[in-house]
Amino acid sequence: MVDLIQKKRDGLELTKEEIQFIIKGYTSGDIPDYQMSAFTMAIFFQGMTDNERAELTMAMVYSGDTIDLSEIKGIKVDKHSTGGVGDTTTLVLGPLVASVGVPVAKMSGRGLGHTGGTIDKLEAVPGFHVEIENNQFIDLVNKNKVAVIGQSGNLTPADKKLYSLRDVTATVNSIPLIASSIMSKKIAAGADAIVLDVKTGAGAFMKDLEESKALAKAMVDIGNLVGRRTMAVISDMSQPLGYAIGNALEVKEAIETLSGKGPKDLEELCLVLGSYMVLLAKKADTLEEARTLLTESISSGKALETMKTFLEAQGGDSSVVDNPGSLPQAKFVMELEAKQDGYVSEIIADSVGTAAMLLGAGRATKESEIDLAVGLVLNKKIGDEVKQGESLATIYSNQEDVKAVKEKLYESIKVTSARVEAPKLIYATVE
Amino acid sequence: MVDLIQKKRDGLELTKEEIQFIIKGYTSGDIPDYQMSAFTMAIFFQGMTDNERAELTMAMVYSGDTIDLSEIKGIKVDKHSTGGVGDTTTLVLGPLVASVGVPVAKMSGRGLGHTGGTIDKLEAVPGFHVEIENNQFIDLVNKNKVAVIGQSGNLTPADKKLYSLRDVTATVNSIPLIASSIMSKKIAAGADAIVLDVKTGAGAFMKDLEESKALAKAMVDIGNLVGRRTMAVISDMSQPLGYAIGNALEVKEAIETLSGKGPKDLEELCLVLGSYMVLLAKKADTLEEARTLLTESISSGKALETMKTFLEAQGGDSSVVDNPGSLPQAKFVMELEAKQDGYVSEIIADSVGTAAMLLGAGRATKESEIDLAVGLVLNKKIGDEVKQGESLATIYSNQEDVKAVKEKLYESIKVTSARVEAPKLIYATVE
Repeated sequence: MVDLIQKKRDGLELTKEEIQFIIKGYTSGDIPDYQMSAFTMAIFFQGMTDNERAELTMAMVYSGDTIDLSEIKGIKVDKHSTGGVGDTTTLVLGPLVASVGVPVAKMSGRGLGHTGGTIDKLEAVPGFHVEIENNQFIDLVNKNKVAVIGQSGNLTPADKKLYSLRDVTATVNSIPLIASSIMSKKIAAGADAIVLDVKTGAGAFMKDLEESKALAKAMVDIGNLVGRRTMAVISDMSQPLGYAIGNALEVKEAIETLSGKGPKDLEELCLVLGSYMVLLAKKADTLEEARTLLTESISSGKALETMKTFLEAQGGDSSVVDNPGSLPQAKFVMELEAKQDGYVSEIIADSVGTAAMLLGAGRATKESEIDLAVGLVLNKKIGDEVKQGESLATIYSNQEDVKAVKEKLYESIKVTSARVEAPKLIYATVE
Repeated sequence: MVDLIQKKRDGLELTKEEIQFIIKGYTSGDIPDYQMSAFTMAIFFQGMTDNERAELTMAMVYSGDTIDLSEIKGIKVDKHSTGGVGDTTTLVLGPLVASVGVPVAKMSGRGLGHTGGTIDKLEAVPGFHVEIENNQFIDLVNKNKVAVIGQSGNLTPADKKLYSLRDVTATVNSIPLIASSIMSKKIAAGADAIVLDVKTGAGAFMKDLEESKALAKAMVDIGNLVGRRTMAVISDMSQPLGYAIGNALEVKEAIETLSGKGPKDLEELCLVLGSYMVLLAKKADTLEEARTLLTESISSGKALETMKTFLEAQGGDSSVVDNPGSLPQAKFVMELEAKQDGYVSEIIADSVGTAAMLLGAGRATKESEIDLAVGLVLNKKIGDEVKQGESLATIYSNQEDVKAVKEKLYESIKVTSARVEAPKLIYATVE
């Protein structure tokens, strides 16, 4: 191992066998943490070639179980977003692309953060659950084209172990390591093709556009090298996506978007990502054709119908789709009033997310309980004009005292007198 | 710690307090190996500023015991050579500089390698021993200006722990880490001033002259920043220094050198290093004056007299000085005959050292027993003319069969038909 660390340190390319040796040895414990951390720091400085990235990804895929989705008919396209605040794309895209015949076999988690994960959000629908057997899951996808199951099995243990180590050794922020980590999880979960939504801007993990592009390109190159067609979209996270941040609130927003009445930015990003998914699943020949399929599905009500079918199939009360009032409701609804006339110039996504956590929408530790009803709905986005006293955001809370939340939000949402341009939604696509 | 790794990774300068925190935490075990190895790999790539190197050195000094030599009168100057083959400078320099009034309080070890350490070599003198008490050691230095004691106490534990880690994580070869490791040991052992003999060339740790200069400069800068005046000489190790490689053989060579009859390269290097030691000890105002003191001491017999006093004071039989025949003698003495006429073009120091080990002159593991009598004496050095059948080297062995040794030596000592220039002895000095 010391020779392999030195090889990487000196900028030489590692072979497939060498990378497999390292990942196998690290997973089994034969290679100690202190050698692996020196190795990852060497990668931080020397980078990895395209082939090394692909081999590292596949070595991590085969470090544990892999999900076999071969009994599902069609090309299984997975989507991954690299994090952000108020990201409701997964809730919209599942039913949306399923409604045009693309199979969506989603394995999801609960996760820590400003709001819950996809499963937490869906559990805001009374009765909905993900405790289903693998064969039932496969049957549901074949029948309805969409189902969600909780994470099971020992997927990519090498990645889990390596991520914990990188977290405490200042080697998280390395493009080859981030790219292979994300790609290995998607591939182990059975994806035939992958659409990536790489967020950029102040609220994203990657704050710089050039770095976001480099990460997107790294992942697309890995996917294509290992035979999983991959495409990426670089989308804006200089402010939260859509309006809602909170579990039930995001389900409601997803339903609105599936019926064509959602926030324009969320709808547009879902149409772009969805078009790539449809294209990769070979349900359309061009992006334009794919987009037409999706917009027609929304306007015809087919997308919304698929949402109902999907929820019912997993025990959910599908009446929420027509009557969102049956979703969990917060006791107190309060407005955040603008203190002056002007234009919204900044919405610090991280800090809006923290406000949602203060209300109880997210999980700080694995043991935390989520309050599915609470959260925020933005009423203004960057570039919008606002009058003094007008509502910048609506607060949904189960506590009456929201002083700290309001303070956080006033810090997060900045209003200036000069007119402000709305940010671009999509910066680039990488194929 | 993760923030400090990141700070170094990003090329920012660490403060004194941060470096102390890291070294204290690592010594106590609070900072785990896997963070330290990521940190040292970041240093490998980002280097360290002069202040960081000085602070790292002093943090390692204070990680354990330090030797108090304040009861010894005068400025204690230590000398350190960065390794090599057949390096007899320590055996010569102790008595030589002591003979002109420079106190030499040498703490030494046994060590692994081609031959024993300084203590092993001196034990070739019948009766000589280093098992003396600290106060006796100090009295001897005050009285005779020179004494040798075995390493005791827990000196620079941080350096020991860090060196073991660097060895298995490909971070040995980093100038700031090498420089602070060497300097911390010298300072903890009580040196007021330090003369460094940085070897360069094929037989040295640093094979490249520019790297050797950079290492020398790094150590000189550390010494001067922490108030220990330090000077360095870059000397040749493209071939072994002097003629003898072996314990008793090197003692004999040291005695010859102290009486002005030693190999010219060894004598010259000792005069250069010795002059710096005399200058730093303020026993002379200029290098020229210092050199005159040393050459006069050799020609007057004072240097040799000091050797006798030194050996006797620690139980040694000083008659070896006049009669080297009372040193341990090998049973078999054989010549390595030149196979052709020509000029010696190369003497691969490492591989000559290995030949000496095959004879039993060195220690491969801590448990190995050394044969003090055996070894090699080179009869030709690079640039010398040689006739077929003439002896290239004399082999002193306690086994009759030296086939493997001869084979190794024929591989190591190359003879060509073209005339060859003798290498330079001293490449540069760094003050």
